[in-house]
Amino acid sequence: MIYLDNAATSWPKPEGVAMAVYDCILNKGANPGRSGHKMALEAGRIVLECRETLAEFFGIDDPMRIIFALNTTDALNMAIKGLLRPGQHAVTSSMEHNSVARPLKKLESIGVETTYVSADGIGLILPDDIEKAIKPNTAVIILTLASNVTGTIEPYREIGRIARRHGIPFLLDAAQGAGHIPINVNEDDIDIMAFPGHKGLLGPQGTGGLYIREGIDLDTIKEGGTGSHSDLVTQPDIMPDRYESGTLNTPGIAGLKAGIDYINSIGIEAIRKHEIEICGRIIDGLKEIDGVKVYGPQNAEMHAGVVAFNVGNMDSTEVSYILDSEFEIEVRAGLHCSGLAHMTIGTFGQGVVRVSPGPFTTEQEIGKFLEAVRQIARL
Amino acid sequence: MIYLDNAATSWPKPEGVAMAVYDCILNKGANPGRSGHKMALEAGRIVLECRETLAEFFGIDDPMRIIFALNTTDALNMAIKGLLRPGQHAVTSSMEHNSVARPLKKLESIGVETTYVSADGIGLILPDDIEKAIKPNTAVIILTLASNVTGTIEPYREIGRIARRHGIPFLLDAAQGAGHIPINVNEDDIDIMAFPGHKGLLGPQGTGGLYIREGIDLDTIKEGGTGSHSDLVTQPDIMPDRYESGTLNTPGIAGLKAGIDYINSIGIEAIRKHEIEICGRIIDGLKEIDGVKVYGPQNAEMHAGVVAFNVGNMDSTEVSYILDSEFEIEVRAGLHCSGLAHMTIGTFGQGVVRVSPGPFTTEQEIGKFLEAVRQIARL
Repeated sequence: MIYLDNAATSWPKPEGVAMAVYDCILNKGANPGRSGHKMALEAGRIVLECRETLAEFFGIDDPMRIIFALNTTDALNMAIKGLLRPGQHAVTSSMEHNSVARPLKKLESIGVETTYVSADGIGLILPDDIEKAIKPNTAVIILTLASNVTGTIEPYREIGRIARRHGIPFLLDAAQGAGHIPINVNEDDIDIMAFPGHKGLLGPQGTGGLYIREGIDLDTIKEGGTGSHSDLVTQPDIMPDRYESGTLNTPGIAGLKAGIDYINSIGIEAIRKHEIEICGRIIDGLKEIDGVKVYGPQNAEMHAGVVAFNVGNMDSTEVSYILDSEFEIEVRAGLHCSGLAHMTIGTFGQGVVRVSPGPFTTEQEIGKFLEAVRQIARL
Repeated sequence: MIYLDNAATSWPKPEGVAMAVYDCILNKGANPGRSGHKMALEAGRIVLECRETLAEFFGIDDPMRIIFALNTTDALNMAIKGLLRPGQHAVTSSMEHNSVARPLKKLESIGVETTYVSADGIGLILPDDIEKAIKPNTAVIILTLASNVTGTIEPYREIGRIARRHGIPFLLDAAQGAGHIPINVNEDDIDIMAFPGHKGLLGPQGTGGLYIREGIDLDTIKEGGTGSHSDLVTQPDIMPDRYESGTLNTPGIAGLKAGIDYINSIGIEAIRKHEIEICGRIIDGLKEIDGVKVYGPQNAEMHAGVVAFNVGNMDSTEVSYILDSEFEIEVRAGLHCSGLAHMTIGTFGQGVVRVSPGPFTTEQEIGKFLEAVRQIARL
């Protein structure tokens, strides 16, 4: 089986990930930050170490400004709803995932205004267009690091600088890119960042997080027991407790740390270099096949591990079905939770076939994948 | 080491739990409900099977009415905020965890009214008092199945009947009890139920859920990608997608199913019988020690695997510290995220030492625990 669906969730995980989760459940299974006994402290240490590892990885000064969440969507909801008030305005893009578009749609019903800046035909947002969309009541700029449909890496650094210049918080959705595109929240002027644990960071599903720069105060969308200030019926103000109610996914967090440790052991630059090489082969190989159309940028450097294509007018789900059933190649087809992006690139009806390699994808696997598409294109 | 902190999180887990998680990460690691390929379908099957197992376990007719969440707090926030509107009234109790009290406090700021019905000195809520608190604008009755401080099992069946008679939705917080106190949502008139995966159900941390009876429509507090109706920018109405945005904790859910399978293999009645025996020994043993005060009901049948006590005027955290450091016995002390309950039983200053055995706790362990308390009481 050839797995090319890493943009949905990365697989396989590095060797240490499943073992770290297993070991945590077996040997460090207490509740972190609740009781004071040894095993609870050990569980607390697992969580703290992962927070510190994440902080170093993303250039975050204070690990306590990182919140653990169920997934990126959970983190994005905390950020978007914690930030925006009726009468305020959000600037975002037509390349956003439904995890941004749907919370914003919900907020429109209570009087939040939104502007969706359109990308060009390869899914690229122009920083100038973002700047032009800013209004006096703009309270946040929300941008995906890279499109989950076309893989297009957006000019997030330039847009971060624009946000900083205007004194507007910049929220980056790093669902596609965290773990393989180098990110430094200070250098990149990122104020808030939602990220998955189970994609590029190579951790298990059930993990993700939110970075909130000091000085940015988000209202809470969830309150509850935090193991701190139990005497108070109001949510405590201290970080990260304010946004982390209830028991964390400690085993998952142990696995997430193992995933990042693996990335650090190889070096994110090496992972990115491999990704560019593999994506380059995919793009070049697909372009040589008659009837195949590749979406997004035509050079691999502008892709975050995702390439979208179609075979003639074939339904994208039909292509992915044949790849799976006849060639044991696993890709994703359809709209990928991002209807807006498909309107932008003109594939709202057909959807696209999405190939997303990972750090363990080999050139041979891509060779087999291209051969399979060649055969499908001849049908 | 003797672990007596199962009310925070159960440990050890049954043998199959860690292995189910491990196997899922290694061999079924795709994203459920997203792509159509074989491994994604297999991941989807894991989630479906756990949903079906939970439904059978709780007497739920339609498994699709069960939502997976990060933890009970996540589920309670979805329920409480999805249900209550400004001007509406909630009846609840003084024995609630901060996971109920803090979301309600937050809602008070937008004009939701709350009544906290006081428990008696053993932490018991009288159904009559709940009924008397009902007003024309009461939109929900929220009750903990059992206190996480005293272990007192509340008369949830009687209160469920009252709610049903008045046509008011009944929300049960089953954080303490699910997995060892038999629950049947139909027979017990439960309309909405939040439950943890990592306590009595013996699954891993990072799991929990919410049951929502058909006909009850909760507003969403989170929206995002659901893998369904990707063309729509509004949250889809279908269950469970409406409340399950973003990637689920598939490995955790695999482990949760293994935990419930274990309970089913032993029988919940046997687990409950063991719990009553062990709690009986704890209560009787503690009461024989000079200077020790046991809180809550004095008979084990009224306890859900939790016994609270103090040794003279010693600070509860001091007692738990000695138990851990000198006897390797792990319990929890303090306020346990439930300040209100401590006001009710008069331990707001001192807190309590909480002993919470699990299905693997042995009589010998309880013997050693009682001997340790005896020594501490002589200090």
